Amino acid sequence: MEKEIKMDVKLQEAKDSIRDIVDFPKEGIVFKDITTMLKDEKHLNTLVESLYEQYKDKGITKIVGLESRGFILGTVLAYKLGAGFVPVRKPGKLPAPTYSEKYSLEYGEDEMFIHQDALNSEDVILLHDDLLATGGTAKASINLISKFNVKNVFVNFLVELDFLNGREKLDTDYQVDSLFHF
Amino acid sequence: MEKEIKMDVKLQEAKDSIRDIVDFPKEGIVFKDITTMLKDEKHLNTLVESLYEQYKDKGITKIVGLESRGFILGTVLAYKLGAGFVPVRKPGKLPAPTYSEKYSLEYGEDEMFIHQDALNSEDVILLHDDLLATGGTAKASINLISKFNVKNVFVNFLVELDFLNGREKLDTDYQVDSLFHF
Repeated sequence: MEKEIKMDVKLQEAKDSIRDIVDFPKEGIVFKDITTMLKDEKHLNTLVESLYEQYKDKGITKIVGLESRGFILGTVLAYKLGAGFVPVRKPGKLPAPTYSEKYSLEYGEDEMFIHQDALNSEDVILLHDDLLATGGTAKASINLISKFNVKNVFVNFLVELDFLNGREKLDTDYQVDSLFHF
Repeated sequence: MEKEIKMDVKLQEAKDSIRDIVDFPKEGIVFKDITTMLKDEKHLNTLVESLYEQYKDKGITKIVGLESRGFILGTVLAYKLGAGFVPVRKPGKLPAPTYSEKYSLEYGEDEMFIHQDALNSEDVILLHDDLLATGGTAKASINLISKFNVKNVFVNFLVELDFLNGREKLDTDYQVDSLFHF
């Protein structure tokens, strides 16, 4: 109980260290800059310990991290959970045969890729990215994972922008959790 | 002694799991694909424990990881060493005021960026990237770090391609180490 309260305080301090950048990447957007949180070793430790507690009993065998900020905490979680790490990447980056999924951008579309030998049917996956905004890349990544008939999938974001309703767009039965909500 | 031998065997197994991809990203290049190593939880654990042993007594306060594959092990090392994590990124990604350094590509040039508030003069830095090839991005990143007058810098790569002589291009007095040489 006391331990939980202490963790709540630490998590709130970590959340408070996220910096708002007005009009980035363009006018009207308030960007949540996590670099101010990650550079502080106390906050980084809090994030890792908190996420580890949340997922340690789920039998997770692989973390799938989305390029590129999903790589940042994805591999720490893999190490802590005794799992492997698998990147989902942008076009032209993965050298071996891939599956791919297109998704819509504000203007046009983009595509995410995963190696065909990255996962197998025995895997329990934790899909991780730093941010759930409109949900395009996350939905594409869930679709990529679904090609492998894995045992189960958990979806995790460091930050979720609730007002963008990205969670609805994911349209999934998998458990979706975010550490920080704005 | 026995522990060291065991680690040597584990490191060799990890090295052996790196996959050669011929003619990627273009004809004549043999690409060292680390995804086959990272997806295996045994190898990921070996990499982290080995790098931790190497740097645990250096007083490192921040890991600087280069976009995007330097993010993969950079943050695990930060967590293990009780340090913070700082990304060096490509153009248009960092939202707050930055320093930048240009570097030459085969055709043309590119530029790397770091937040101006990322480091300070009390820091001991471990600069990490997955690959030392021709050394362009690493040299640019060393130049970026030098703007902060930090106490000391260690430079680490997961894989070094010795035949490309990238180490000479770094032209630095800092300690440079690579876990795997090809």
